[in-house]
Amino acid sequence: MSDIVAALQEALGNRVLTDADTLDAHRRDHWALAEIRDLLDQGAPRPRAVVRAASTEDVAQTLRICRAERAPVIPFGGASGACGAIEANPDSIVLSTRGLDGLVRLDDRNLTATFRAGTLGIEAENRVQQDGLTIGHWPQSIDVSTVGGWVATRAAGQYSTAYGSIEDVVLALEVVLPDGSVLRTRETPRASAGPDLRQIFMGSEGTLGVITEVTFSLRPLPEASTGQAFHFASFEAGLEAIRRFMRDGWRPPVVRLYDAHESKRTFADWCPEGRNLLLLIHEGPASAVKAQFDAVAELCGAEGGEAADAACVDNWLEHRNVVPTWRELIESGWVVDTIEVACTWDLAPRLYDEVTRSLREVPGVIVASSHSSHSYRSGTCLYFTFAARFKDRERMPEVYRECWERTMRGSVAVGAGISHHHGIGRVRRGWLADEVGDTGVELLRALKRALDPDGLLNPGALLPPSEAEER
Amino acid sequence: MSDIVAALQEALGNRVLTDADTLDAHRRDHWALAEIRDLLDQGAPRPRAVVRAASTEDVAQTLRICRAERAPVIPFGGASGACGAIEANPDSIVLSTRGLDGLVRLDDRNLTATFRAGTLGIEAENRVQQDGLTIGHWPQSIDVSTVGGWVATRAAGQYSTAYGSIEDVVLALEVVLPDGSVLRTRETPRASAGPDLRQIFMGSEGTLGVITEVTFSLRPLPEASTGQAFHFASFEAGLEAIRRFMRDGWRPPVVRLYDAHESKRTFADWCPEGRNLLLLIHEGPASAVKAQFDAVAELCGAEGGEAADAACVDNWLEHRNVVPTWRELIESGWVVDTIEVACTWDLAPRLYDEVTRSLREVPGVIVASSHSSHSYRSGTCLYFTFAARFKDRERMPEVYRECWERTMRGSVAVGAGISHHHGIGRVRRGWLADEVGDTGVELLRALKRALDPDGLLNPGALLPPSEAEER
Repeated sequence: MSDIVAALQEALGNRVLTDADTLDAHRRDHWALAEIRDLLDQGAPRPRAVVRAASTEDVAQTLRICRAERAPVIPFGGASGACGAIEANPDSIVLSTRGLDGLVRLDDRNLTATFRAGTLGIEAENRVQQDGLTIGHWPQSIDVSTVGGWVATRAAGQYSTAYGSIEDVVLALEVVLPDGSVLRTRETPRASAGPDLRQIFMGSEGTLGVITEVTFSLRPLPEASTGQAFHFASFEAGLEAIRRFMRDGWRPPVVRLYDAHESKRTFADWCPEGRNLLLLIHEGPASAVKAQFDAVAELCGAEGGEAADAACVDNWLEHRNVVPTWRELIESGWVVDTIEVACTWDLAPRLYDEVTRSLREVPGVIVASSHSSHSYRSGTCLYFTFAARFKDRERMPEVYRECWERTMRGSVAVGAGISHHHGIGRVRRGWLADEVGDTGVELLRALKRALDPDGLLNPGALLPPSEAEER
Repeated sequence: MSDIVAALQEALGNRVLTDADTLDAHRRDHWALAEIRDLLDQGAPRPRAVVRAASTEDVAQTLRICRAERAPVIPFGGASGACGAIEANPDSIVLSTRGLDGLVRLDDRNLTATFRAGTLGIEAENRVQQDGLTIGHWPQSIDVSTVGGWVATRAAGQYSTAYGSIEDVVLALEVVLPDGSVLRTRETPRASAGPDLRQIFMGSEGTLGVITEVTFSLRPLPEASTGQAFHFASFEAGLEAIRRFMRDGWRPPVVRLYDAHESKRTFADWCPEGRNLLLLIHEGPASAVKAQFDAVAELCGAEGGEAADAACVDNWLEHRNVVPTWRELIESGWVVDTIEVACTWDLAPRLYDEVTRSLREVPGVIVASSHSSHSYRSGTCLYFTFAARFKDRERMPEVYRECWERTMRGSVAVGAGISHHHGIGRVRRGWLADEVGDTGVELLRALKRALDPDGLLNPGALLPPSEAEER
């Protein structure tokens, strides 16, 4: 262990960094609790070293060396994760993919583009848009997240209701396994050739391998793109309108229903107080957009939706990439976070009521609100926001934990899932068994042992601590 | 091993069957080579016993007993597989899921339906159609395949171009793992909570667990359904038309382009000789169908497509479930099979030319034809048919192997995948590394060892024999 840095430097030269600034910048991701801990001088420690890989072979070498030395390795992309999947310790080597940058190849005829995994989302999207194409995956973090991180997190973007989530737009992957071997899945539109190996790494959060290349199945930029908006007397009525048009087969890429609190907070110019705003964007061939626009208007009207000025959609488009700056809020005494969960339609109204009610019972909580951000034939994603304020900084972690505890407990109690697109990291790992059952957790542990028998890849993320590991 | 049947009977009573007729009926699936071997008196042997499970607990008990006794277990649904995934040996216990039958629950509001895994596809589809709904998954085998088999095979149906393949319509699974523990995934429309555990069993072909329940995300039956047909001067021109409308975002559920040979063989009444027929079915809300119908007509016209009488679509609908009766053909001296592979658009014309040309070089081959059966933004599935005829029956297996060898070699040589929706079984296992690489095969082996360390679940299927196992 003592000479791990020397061993890495011998193999990788100046791509191994140990200066204080670099180590500081690679301690953790954007988890709000990690921000709070920083504020309280209880922040994550610096890692031992940062390897900035410049090639797939660099990644493989790093993993082989760390395996030989039994050093923990933390894969690190844009670090925009919100759940604490990245948290260094003084023994760990952080393996940054940000040097694996840029387009490998683009094929207009097949609508495919391969990017190295450390490419920022926005750079990948801008590159394909130069050719009149789009990835169709637009997470709020697009300016700061990497395409490899999208896969590792099992992300979903704002246009997912028509274009699908990351699993629907990824055609092929290159992944370095913990033993340094390289998996390349074939670029075919579909296969029935055993289990889909790409899926093992979608949502693996750096615990099963390091993604080094991502091939997307693209779309042309749409011929037409039209905003539309309605407001409803209740959140439930808005959800019902979405359920109805999803049921009939209409698929606006963007479908976002804000409760009355969020509608007032963000869209007061376009939504009467107390009403719940539904934002829609239709995209596609002009004739398809027209048919869908009209049909959705009729179905929303039938549920009591009143048309709102579509200028609110433009306003949303302007601000949609603003990732909340936790630090500023936290430094001024706010405990804030967002928590997204998925559920079938029947559960959504009760989930909304239960969680927002329960959050409001926490002392200091001022905001407890939600919007529906992604929808499906069978259900939707509710995206909760909470904010609490008080003077005693030492209590901030406790209140943060309490808000999460209540949201997770409330979600599980009504039968919802525990996460839609932010992942597990550290903040949710205690509830993983509620999502996949004890058997599912054991299955994930077996998969982990099979690929990473020494448990060196991103230990502490995703899997709940085993009984032996619990203090 | 000697008392495995007694141990099973003690636990499961008369659900353990050892009569000759039952054993005979559970020797193998519908693999054409298995039919040929039967004809040559080289057929698969009878298994030791058949367990007809009536509950999830029956399945768990069977797996626990077989594990204790180290007896191989072959999960068995409708046995309609075409690749030899089921082949008994005298030591093996066949575990039939056909007693796990019928609807568990249907939820019209959430558009979900849960069936026990041994339910025949057509019975499941008919049941949800009673409520005005559809699974949207219609494999040619629907009359004889089970819903659990659809998952285990990673199947695709005839309507997949709009509705997706099995992985797109399954919401949740119940699976008994090799150690008898039961995995139940949560009924949510999506999750970011680690790797998608359902995917491990989609395509597992009975080697990693036994699927006992399948929950589908349904659709309402469409408001409108309209057939449409065109014929093209070349197969390539037809493929280009499909690529164009897929690129623009149009999604007819049924998109089938037949080469001139198949067009003549099956659709001579509707397609001029030498032309290539494209069959389409549009489904959905009437206004969406209208927009799509018109747009597709324009794009097909631009590629030289001439409108054909849509009555050919009705003809196809009438005959689409006819599974070829290999036995009759084989008994009259024909060696026949179908082989489906997937590829990106750029490869499709060369794949078509290469494989049909190479097949025609095999002595005795009379038919070598293809159609495109499922399409995607980035590519399509080519579904080859070969038929050879000659008198020397002893040579039938050799010719069969030669046709497969040429199709697989040709596919891999141009860069295509090795299977689109029939799976691996035994016929393709030697080429699995061409699809997923040596690393992919090792990853699958690691997964197999992790879940089934004694290798008892369906040995011989899916994975190529390891060097130690090779004779």
